[in-house]
Amino acid sequence: MLNSFVPKDPAFKARVTASFDKQGLMITLGACIVHVAPGMVEIVLQASPAVSQQHGFIHAGALAAIADTAAGYAALSLMRPGVGVLTTEFKINLVAPAKGERVVAKARVIKAGRTLPVAQTDVFSETEGREELVALFTATLMAVEGREGVND
Amino acid sequence: MLNSFVPKDPAFKARVTASFDKQGLMITLGACIVHVAPGMVEIVLQASPAVSQQHGFIHAGALAAIADTAAGYAALSLMRPGVGVLTTEFKINLVAPAKGERVVAKARVIKAGRTLPVAQTDVFSETEGREELVALFTATLMAVEGREGVND
Amino acid sequence: MLNSFVPKDPAFKARVTASFDKQGLMITLGACIVHVAPGMVEIVLQASPAVSQQHGFIHAGALAAIADTAAGYAALSLMRPGVGVLTTEFKINLVAPAKGERVVAKARVIKAGRTLPVAQTDVFSETEGREELVALFTATLMAVEGREGVND
Amino acid sequence: MLNSFVPKDPAFKARVTASFDKQGLMITLGACIVHVAPGMVEIVLQASPAVSQQHGFIHAGALAAIADTAAGYAALSLMRPGVGVLTTEFKINLVAPAKGERVVAKARVIKAGRTLPVAQTDVFSETEGREELVALFTATLMAVEGREGVND
Repeated sequence: MLNSFVPKDPAFKARVTASFDKQGLMITLGACIVHVAPGMVEIVLQASPAVSQQHGFIHAGALAAIADTAAGYAALSLMRPGVGVLTTEFKINLVAPAKGERVVAKARVIKAGRTLPVAQTDVFSETEGREELVALFTATLMAVEGREGVND
Repeated sequence: MLNSFVPKDPAFKARVTASFDKQGLMITLGACIVHVAPGMVEIVLQASPAVSQQHGFIHAGALAAIADTAAGYAALSLMRPGVGVLTTEFKINLVAPAKGERVVAKARVIKAGRTLPVAQTDVFSETEGREELVALFTATLMAVEGREGVND
Repeated sequence: MLNSFVPKDPAFKARVTASFDKQGLMITLGACIVHVAPGMVEIVLQASPAVSQQHGFIHAGALAAIADTAAGYAALSLMRPGVGVLTTEFKINLVAPAKGERVVAKARVIKAGRTLPVAQTDVFSETEGREELVALFTATLMAVEGREGVND
Repeated sequence: MLNSFVPKDPAFKARVTASFDKQGLMITLGACIVHVAPGMVEIVLQASPAVSQQHGFIHAGALAAIADTAAGYAALSLMRPGVGVLTTEFKINLVAPAKGERVVAKARVIKAGRTLPVAQTDVFSETEGREELVALFTATLMAVEGREGVND
């Protein structure tokens, strides 16, 4: 799908990464934002016991967390300065156990609505350079204006 | 709704808590399992910058993680020994920002299917003793038998 | 769950049923609205080959249709006159095949948000007077004001 | 995304269309299956008051019905003869009102699991030859073997 979004904020990249750095959960998980383009964001998470479920796979909650953050910032990258983003709902299908060395969440905006943008994130595991789709994620975000404490 | 599930494993409580203790992500987040009954599990998470998103609310990914773990163990509590549980998909609606001192995820099995149980989790924030619903969560779990490394 | 919503429009019942009568799809399916209370709506659909899938069960799309209509009108019942309701997203879990003589969709508002209410619908099949849960449904609605053609 | 599925049944196309013809709901709605390829199915529905909601748009339930049927048959196209398909859950995001002359649901299998395939359907409205995305749909299907009355 051709992605030809034009950002309303020329400094969108700095704004997204500055906001990402305020997400304590991403620091706690050890997730890194590795790509920011208009309407597209990628986040990487290393596999480790610290993010695992009981069988040693990466926990679905950790996959959902990076998929959600990626989707939210994909949406934020298209918003005007001072507008904040919140997630209203998301759905994730876990199509394979998340094994391997790390996972990468690749989000793209599907519908850049003014108030309720929709984004999808594909999550891939990486094992010795080979990518496998492990999760499909769809979220509805919300653009928030004029609410104290909810900007960027 | 009357919950009258009869567990197939009299030691279900020990099995659930032993499995919970293997979830590295729960330890990383600081989540605790506080209630285990047949088809019902509750998990508590303290609010802190370590689990926050950019505005200081608890991150939707952290809410999803404890909701998912609670739903999975609610389902596991009804399974025979040696059967493992995996999540195949879940959906979460974030109906209010997760503020307050802590959140509690209360899961219950809605359909105790032999292979694909369905569970729902309500997540509440607690602020000075007052509970507020912050998230509605529904998951399809999968009972896994005879797959190496996937038991309990 | 105690439902203690106070409708903003004393004529909410007439408004809901008048709007329901404009849903051509409900007429085509033969669905009837059988209960309207503040934040709660019930819709009934008779089983017949006209609403079936290939094995003779009621089609998941027909279940989703009545669940969605019930959820939307449960939300509309709490809105001011002149405000319209649209569905932004929904999720349905089909926990048992929909057999029997008819199905009933019972919706209730979970969160009566000003702009994005959330409602859940349980769908039951009825066979010789016995009810069985066949589907769990959750929707995010949207209150629409001042958009031509979208009221009630 | 490259779709390179190899069907297990050379007669997959005839099997899918014969099964589609048994879906009473599709006949009732006036939906037509217009494309069947390995792991891909397209279904078309004409706009009319018979499938509308209260504002004259095509009802979300009708969109979900054709999206679900398309997803199910995309999955069935890859299954062995005699195996039946059921939907276990689906999620739909309605990203724009469904106006125009007709809608087309384009489904593709994302994960061709042996027991729980996952498919996605994009639904487009067509207005004077112009396509607009109106809905994003994701479903988990289930392959059913040896259950009487549930084949194809």
